[in-house]
Amino acid sequence: MLSQAQIKLIKSLQLRKHRREAGLFIAEGIKVVEELVTSAIKVEHVYASDKYEGLVPHIKITDRELNQVSSLTNSQGIIALCRIPSTTAAKPDLKKEFVIALDNIRDPGNMGTIIRIADWFGIKHIFCSNESVDAYNSKVVQATMGSIARVNVHYIDLPAMLADCTKDNTPVYGALLSGKNVYTEKLTSNGVLVIGNEANGISEQIEKLIGHPISIPSYANGKGAESLNAAIATAILCAEFRRR
Amino acid sequence: MLSQAQIKLIKSLQLRKHRREAGLFIAEGIKVVEELVTSAIKVEHVYASDKYEGLVPHIKITDRELNQVSSLTNSQGIIALCRIPSTTAAKPDLKKEFVIALDNIRDPGNMGTIIRIADWFGIKHIFCSNESVDAYNSKVVQATMGSIARVNVHYIDLPAMLADCTKDNTPVYGALLSGKNVYTEKLTSNGVLVIGNEANGISEQIEKLIGHPISIPSYANGKGAESLNAAIATAILCAEFRRR
Repeated sequence: MLSQAQIKLIKSLQLRKHRREAGLFIAEGIKVVEELVTSAIKVEHVYASDKYEGLVPHIKITDRELNQVSSLTNSQGIIALCRIPSTTAAKPDLKKEFVIALDNIRDPGNMGTIIRIADWFGIKHIFCSNESVDAYNSKVVQATMGSIARVNVHYIDLPAMLADCTKDNTPVYGALLSGKNVYTEKLTSNGVLVIGNEANGISEQIEKLIGHPISIPSYANGKGAESLNAAIATAILCAEFRRR
Repeated sequence: MLSQAQIKLIKSLQLRKHRREAGLFIAEGIKVVEELVTSAIKVEHVYASDKYEGLVPHIKITDRELNQVSSLTNSQGIIALCRIPSTTAAKPDLKKEFVIALDNIRDPGNMGTIIRIADWFGIKHIFCSNESVDAYNSKVVQATMGSIARVNVHYIDLPAMLADCTKDNTPVYGALLSGKNVYTEKLTSNGVLVIGNEANGISEQIEKLIGHPISIPSYANGKGAESLNAAIATAILCAEFRRR
């Protein structure tokens, strides 16, 4: 069972501010929780109702208690209280590594999907502008399907970081509709790929810091969709960087 | 204003059965409605409240009426009643064209995103197994961002269609984790690319009909995500077919 204090704590973690203060986040869904308990993420408690039939050790709670704390409309019977990992120690060497930077990604589904894409392609770090949606939002955590445990997501002053890259001769690529065809551009195995906001693309301030604007050719002769979803563009571009 | 009969009709279109009987669907959101009115889709009526400040001619309704018929929690003030286009006339020549086939895609967001991807890459036809989510579901329509107007979505007996392809020597590709590396396989400019269900992949019955199983290499040395989201896989594979 859950005490009133526990219920209050878990519910409070729906807000980023409270997650950051407590250093905790909530994971929901069978697949995600089962991945997290075997990962490097520290899982403080797992709570599950009779609906959960899997093997993860857990504290039994009622469906009523679960519904009180779950942010899903269709809970899968399991919820975990986890510790947000520190990313300050993990600093990639951008002379060797390839990383993703997100300029104001707002949709939790897109953020989760991008973390899963990074994980698939062995990209260990994502740098997010501070306005981007929080990776420890429970909708994001669920959309990552467990990949949140293997990718370091940093929240930083993105313009400052990219300015440092430029000074340092680290290539900064950016997904821009006006960019050069990614299939004919020279691509390096290190550097930063910047992806912009869903509605507005890359912000003006950041665009100035992009040394290598790239785009995905459409093949629709100007008659097709105006753009691709941010996560879709990320996937196609990462696939191409990795293919080379 | 909306009559009770109109409210009843619009609300009934939340169910596939009623959409098919009436031959009508609902589009919501500024971007989607504005794209549809200039497209080949026949838009019967546009209703909008004072919240809508755009230029599309519309019948004025109150926010209260809009909330009665909208399926969105945050309506953008505009809703359109549109006619489902007939796809029976449009038959692609698979000796020349490249098309997508969906084996039981269930998530409206994925379906909408896949339609948008097809539109971006100039793929004019998507063939869906009858169990797949309906492309005229209003969540799908919104996720297509207007691409629903330019892509023909057919619902068919998918195993029968793929069996015909095999007889006919039309290449049938399928996204399978056990498939061959797409970057080293020979790819043709015509044929069918089959994408499976979000949780279960391609069904057993369909898998037997796949002449060319292909996969996206992960580069994570077996330590990364177990799979990619269905729409993400579609995007990367379509990009590679088009690049060749």
